[in-house]
Amino acid sequence: MIKERSTNKLLLLLLSKKGEYVSGEEISEKFGVSRTAIWKQIKHLREMGYEISSMPRIGYCLKKSPDLLLPEEIISKSNLEFLGREIYYYPSIGSTNEEAKRLAQEGALHGSLVIAEEQTGGKGRMGRTWMSPPRVGIWMSIILRPSLEPYEAPRITMTSAVAAAKAIRKSTGADCRIKWPNDLLIEGKKVAGILTEMSGDMDGINYVVTGIGINVNNEDFPEELKETATSLKLVCGKNIDRLEVLTEFLSDFEEYYRYLEAGEFKNVLQEWRVLCCNLGRRVKIAGRNFALEGIALDVDDDGALLVKSESGKVERILSGDVSLRE
Amino acid sequence: MIKERSTNKLLLLLLSKKGEYVSGEEISEKFGVSRTAIWKQIKHLREMGYEISSMPRIGYCLKKSPDLLLPEEIISKSNLEFLGREIYYYPSIGSTNEEAKRLAQEGALHGSLVIAEEQTGGKGRMGRTWMSPPRVGIWMSIILRPSLEPYEAPRITMTSAVAAAKAIRKSTGADCRIKWPNDLLIEGKKVAGILTEMSGDMDGINYVVTGIGINVNNEDFPEELKETATSLKLVCGKNIDRLEVLTEFLSDFEEYYRYLEAGEFKNVLQEWRVLCCNLGRRVKIAGRNFALEGIALDVDDDGALLVKSESGKVERILSGDVSLRE
Repeated sequence: MIKERSTNKLLLLLLSKKGEYVSGEEISEKFGVSRTAIWKQIKHLREMGYEISSMPRIGYCLKKSPDLLLPEEIISKSNLEFLGREIYYYPSIGSTNEEAKRLAQEGALHGSLVIAEEQTGGKGRMGRTWMSPPRVGIWMSIILRPSLEPYEAPRITMTSAVAAAKAIRKSTGADCRIKWPNDLLIEGKKVAGILTEMSGDMDGINYVVTGIGINVNNEDFPEELKETATSLKLVCGKNIDRLEVLTEFLSDFEEYYRYLEAGEFKNVLQEWRVLCCNLGRRVKIAGRNFALEGIALDVDDDGALLVKSESGKVERILSGDVSLRE
Repeated sequence: MIKERSTNKLLLLLLSKKGEYVSGEEISEKFGVSRTAIWKQIKHLREMGYEISSMPRIGYCLKKSPDLLLPEEIISKSNLEFLGREIYYYPSIGSTNEEAKRLAQEGALHGSLVIAEEQTGGKGRMGRTWMSPPRVGIWMSIILRPSLEPYEAPRITMTSAVAAAKAIRKSTGADCRIKWPNDLLIEGKKVAGILTEMSGDMDGINYVVTGIGINVNNEDFPEELKETATSLKLVCGKNIDRLEVLTEFLSDFEEYYRYLEAGEFKNVLQEWRVLCCNLGRRVKIAGRNFALEGIALDVDDDGALLVKSESGKVERILSGDVSLRE
């Protein structure tokens, strides 16, 4: 676990001067450590996969970063306001949502991030799993402490969905769409999913954890997922920079979250409607205790899907699985 | 921690035949243990405070139980359907709600109970504390896995409040009233409080923990609480049997919870209205971001208080602190 307050300051410095030489003397003075200590740290960074060239009497130059979602990389590549004030980073973890809930219970700050290179027990909705192999995706959870009532929590999912769809569109040019309530599709196949969990009491929400899984550089999927799942790499035919997608998502999330906090959720909703692939279409919904077919008319402020059934009655659907019908 | 599956079977047997002699031979055969093992268990029960007389060749007779809320006592004194399938009992704990949330997260069953003789960090609403000294109150949490949407969770608080008010009225004859949203008052002073917490996701509630604290035999309160808090003992002028109040509450809770599960919440609501001391009265409400004065007209299905303000507009209040005005 790496938290921002224990970030590697040398790495941050080298990242801020990527491609330039920084002298050992400068580093030594800046951090008040010996040249030997610096050399040890450089060695450690190289072992992590950083390409750092060194020239006697000139210094060190960071040439290339490994493909890792390290806190220092995120910090140096983004300009965030409240997200990532604490970043918990794990090479491998069971589920980022489970860990985020644990951290939130222990008092983790609003905006804390939990990021893993691999999830061994990634979670989807309704107890399903989310395949999260090492270093190919973005497996992340955000801890939030919003001033919302529990019934307004779906707004967080909608904010995540808009931010993720926007980030994917910007990073890849692909026509990424939102499928109510929590999936992102490209060409009809699932490329990302959102799982929002909440803890609250009678006076409101205590914390929300919104988890997002984005299949970035997966090269294939198990037989049973081939028809329904895809990755950005499979769509674009080339490797996609995970860090770029991630930092784009974080900055978009902050942008839309601000509307939500300012009582201007309608701005998020408007984007959501534009990006959604369900609206105006025939849908079949399987809920916990019901099944329904009809036309998806709209979503409301509380994230409910409004479906006009055969009988002409408009039903307000809070949760369920949606299949699109032609 | 004592769970039902590890209940003391000898104690259960003696409780079922309280006042009668049970022969060592019978016990020995029933449980397949030696007479010496039985004698050791009897010794242990005596150390816990049980008065057990023994007569050579006749056997053991349980004369008197100590004043403890042990699982065996609850099981032998009640006839519950789903509550108490697992009972977690603690002589002392930080907070039963915190422990219940932890257990629920780990998969504890619907209806599990967490009971403590003392809470060292008892919780009230909005981060307040609930004074829970040893052996004088009922400090308990119920773990539930209801088929409700998050916005319906206040129904659980209302069910707890009705059951607790009924149990107190039956056990003591006192005119116990509900003050929206979560307090029970006698003669205008707080005698019990309810704290309902919830964990859920986009598909509904994962679990609810409803905690209840009842001041039973407290003999006094700190200076700062004297004006606002009371106990059943202070009201009735005599010691009250904690176990009786507790088992009465559990059986009432099951009765009203059945309505809730059957989609007949109106039956709970009806009782709640009768027992409530706010309705029809002038109230002052302090919320997180607002203050309001008006007449409390009613509560709705979602537990919101409907307040008619000065301007004549009816406001729907989801949470806040209520003061009664004359």
